[in-house]
Amino acid sequence: MTPSEQDHIIGTAHRMADAARAAILPFFRSTDLGTENKEEGGFDPVTRADREAEKAMRRVLSEHRPDDAILGEEFGSKSGTTGVTWVLDPIDGTRGFISGTPTWGVLIAVANANGPIFGIIDQPYIGERFEGGFGRAGMTGPHGPRDLGTRGQTRLDEAILFTTFPEIGTRSEQTAFQAVAENMRLTRYGTDCYAYALLALGQIDLVIEAGLNAYDIQAPIAVIEAAGGVISDWDGGPAHEGGRVLAAANGSIHAAALDILRSNS
Amino acid sequence: MTPSEQDHIIGTAHRMADAARAAILPFFRSTDLGTENKEEGGFDPVTRADREAEKAMRRVLSEHRPDDAILGEEFGSKSGTTGVTWVLDPIDGTRGFISGTPTWGVLIAVANANGPIFGIIDQPYIGERFEGGFGRAGMTGPHGPRDLGTRGQTRLDEAILFTTFPEIGTRSEQTAFQAVAENMRLTRYGTDCYAYALLALGQIDLVIEAGLNAYDIQAPIAVIEAAGGVISDWDGGPAHEGGRVLAAANGSIHAAALDILRSNS
Repeated sequence: MTPSEQDHIIGTAHRMADAARAAILPFFRSTDLGTENKEEGGFDPVTRADREAEKAMRRVLSEHRPDDAILGEEFGSKSGTTGVTWVLDPIDGTRGFISGTPTWGVLIAVANANGPIFGIIDQPYIGERFEGGFGRAGMTGPHGPRDLGTRGQTRLDEAILFTTFPEIGTRSEQTAFQAVAENMRLTRYGTDCYAYALLALGQIDLVIEAGLNAYDIQAPIAVIEAAGGVISDWDGGPAHEGGRVLAAANGSIHAAALDILRSNS
Repeated sequence: MTPSEQDHIIGTAHRMADAARAAILPFFRSTDLGTENKEEGGFDPVTRADREAEKAMRRVLSEHRPDDAILGEEFGSKSGTTGVTWVLDPIDGTRGFISGTPTWGVLIAVANANGPIFGIIDQPYIGERFEGGFGRAGMTGPHGPRDLGTRGQTRLDEAILFTTFPEIGTRSEQTAFQAVAENMRLTRYGTDCYAYALLALGQIDLVIEAGLNAYDIQAPIAVIEAAGGVISDWDGGPAHEGGRVLAAANGSIHAAALDILRSNS
């Protein structure tokens, strides 16, 4: 890919993130979210904000990159002719969104046949944007820009682990997760995609999740790899199709956590 | 208390919150936190940011209200002669702070002999400040000012519950908590004092915690009561000394959750 095509993709991705912010913020902490439940027998909320944000991002693509493919959480797949696919989650963490927390995010990934090559994690309410790929690894936020870079902590008993729910995945997945958590200095919950941004920032050491979709993880993969981290499934293979994900600040702590996950699942 | 004395207290509280922000932000997401562990056999971190922020708040008090009493997490008690006590937690959620999350807060409460009469919950990184008492119930943030007000949801199976850790308190406290959580639409973790702000904003319905100190809960009590919420211990008595806390958006859902806590503890 030429540098000018990369720049065109990066510019389009930021336009999409701007459009998603404008679409979502009027709904955040409003009393008219139009929340619906997608999961029979459970609670998987989707709001008008999810749908309006994905529509807004697709409008930017139809204008600036009409020949690329799209995979979006709310409106499915569209085929393309360029070899580039945009993988979109308009609000990752809708449960957090409807609760008013500021740790949900807009996920925008650019993928080729081998997986993500560029990604953005955007938090519209705080005004934070994390990006990685094409030689970039940086963030902007309320207190200015900053480079991303994971940290070198390699001891599990000094490490900080994040996941979204304590009841992660199936019962056997929960057992494996707990086996890692017992070795940690600190385990925290409830952050959705924001945990991957904290990993890329060098604030935490591990994120472990299960039951993910491709659109949940492709933007985090691009950002974390650009920041120096290592991310795989629980068998050490590629994670970009979703499922069980282990994201780590460095190869050493990734290997240590992978060992525990493997011997407990 | 005269309106002019109330105004003086409110003005002093905001000066203290400003001073704490300035003291804390240089440390947030820095690599030089100076973290120490206060708990033998466990992990209860305190950072230079905690200490510098409490010092900064005490400096404001020594200049503007030298005769009031102080109870602070890091530097203990100072007696006073006015009947007014400032109850301070410079960083509520130090575990979240050292992880880089944006849901820790500075807690400033003003109490008389009967408990808190005014409180501030401040989130310096996002730039959000929630206040309640003396006829005020409002917030300011990156998207402007807003009135606080709890919501009228009364059904447990439509409600959202927050707590900081899934392993809340003792084993019997955990059992009681889980009995409430099983009735909820949604239970979320990891927010520290920010959950009380979300309750006052009308975003969530219940916060249940155990093992709190007076300085963890007095500012949330003032903000939540000013916003129309109900907050007590797990026996329905006053919560301002800490311990087990049940905060609710309204009296009806408070009574429903209290019933479950009582019959399971």
